[in-house]
Amino acid sequence: MRIPREDIRVPDAEADLYLIGLGIGGFDTRTVEVDELLKGSAATFHLTAFDSDLRRICGGEVIDLKSIYESDDDPRAVYRSMSNAVVDRSMNQAGSGAVLFLTYGHPLFLVDSGWQLLHEAASIGIRVKAVAASSFIDQVLVDVRRRYDLAVQSYESHFFIRHEVVIDARMPLLLSQVGDFGSLTLRPSGRVLERLEPLLARIASIYPADRECCLIFSSWRPDVAPESLWTSVGELSTIVSSVHVGCSLYVRGLFDAPR
Amino acid sequence: MRIPREDIRVPDAEADLYLIGLGIGGFDTRTVEVDELLKGSAATFHLTAFDSDLRRICGGEVIDLKSIYESDDDPRAVYRSMSNAVVDRSMNQAGSGAVLFLTYGHPLFLVDSGWQLLHEAASIGIRVKAVAASSFIDQVLVDVRRRYDLAVQSYESHFFIRHEVVIDARMPLLLSQVGDFGSLTLRPSGRVLERLEPLLARIASIYPADRECCLIFSSWRPDVAPESLWTSVGELSTIVSSVHVGCSLYVRGLFDAPR
Repeated sequence: MRIPREDIRVPDAEADLYLIGLGIGGFDTRTVEVDELLKGSAATFHLTAFDSDLRRICGGEVIDLKSIYESDDDPRAVYRSMSNAVVDRSMNQAGSGAVLFLTYGHPLFLVDSGWQLLHEAASIGIRVKAVAASSFIDQVLVDVRRRYDLAVQSYESHFFIRHEVVIDARMPLLLSQVGDFGSLTLRPSGRVLERLEPLLARIASIYPADRECCLIFSSWRPDVAPESLWTSVGELSTIVSSVHVGCSLYVRGLFDAPR
Repeated sequence: MRIPREDIRVPDAEADLYLIGLGIGGFDTRTVEVDELLKGSAATFHLTAFDSDLRRICGGEVIDLKSIYESDDDPRAVYRSMSNAVVDRSMNQAGSGAVLFLTYGHPLFLVDSGWQLLHEAASIGIRVKAVAASSFIDQVLVDVRRRYDLAVQSYESHFFIRHEVVIDARMPLLLSQVGDFGSLTLRPSGRVLERLEPLLARIASIYPADRECCLIFSSWRPDVAPESLWTSVGELSTIVSSVHVGCSLYVRGLFDAPR
């Protein structure tokens, strides 16, 4: 039972709009809390492959955001349209049931539209609550089995290059959205080696050539193995053709040996 | 339905021993997948406050590790005893039902006994599988509402000091296990300001005095708010008396404004 509370961050606080993540690896990585929210929702907006599962369990309307996602190649235009649709519905729904915005992973981890909603909905008086979920950092830890829980430098790839981040080369590096690097559109095109060249050059300038690294594409379905391609920093360009949108790159530190 | 698979990382792969995390914020932050595992388990070892909830839903025996945890103050001795108990049971159970090892948060995030089990069980032929869950990184992101999803330097506090980690002061820092710092025992004692002095001095030497920072203690129960104490790096010592075991410290970067 949810309760109206001053501090919306209290786990059982009631909200008008919930930002929800499914975790990574299938529909069953949703939490029991999320399952209850879905069952009791008035409207669930989502950008996932689980439309039919959602229609089976959700109490209210289910709205697949795919058509908005495919309407434009400019990420800003797309995220703006999505936010608008969700905010409009939350305003109209006010007082008669909760609206949910559902993504893979964590609703605020590399989800621009999640942050937009958090900010905009709150600014017009909609009670908006983000519910933590498991993110790529959690899944990659299990997929690569290296101890970066004690130490990690975690950067989104564009951000990492744009700000020429200072790195401690003794410590591991986890780069997210490697597959999107060098593209300003939602569906990257062009030669991948060319697109990724500045990223590879920067990594090679920081870490020694024999340092172990791994390109990881976590599983998105219960019956599919994660892909993990191990190589050395010096040989990284040889595996780049396997980069997918959604890939992460892990460069090992000196202390994160498997135990 | 779980399936025997060569790659134990496939989400639906069958194992003899599962390392499981409950997430953070209450019993309902477990996933639907974990719920199924609990119901079908032969034996569930845990170190949580949810003993009675577990006895209600678990199919098999429930073993509270509290007595082992309280048997010694030396972390290594304690984690060794726990691992031994779980490995012994997994060997004896072989072929007649799964054994679960259950913690808060993520089963490999700052859980030494999780890593020990992953390594030791596998080395004697027990099929051991870690299941990703939401970690403190995910929960603190929601609690502080600052965009460190694009960039974060995340270190365990002891590790951070021992290795004199190089930090980019334009980027945020997330220090875990701040409340344990300066103590080699499981139940830290002694004056907290004295214990934490080297940590505070190091932070003050890296970040400008006016940089915003926050001491966070995430909620562990559905009806309790997270505690977040905001101050500046220069004033950090004034809030140190509020440090709990399990606290994290977030120092803001230049680019991780709230949106």
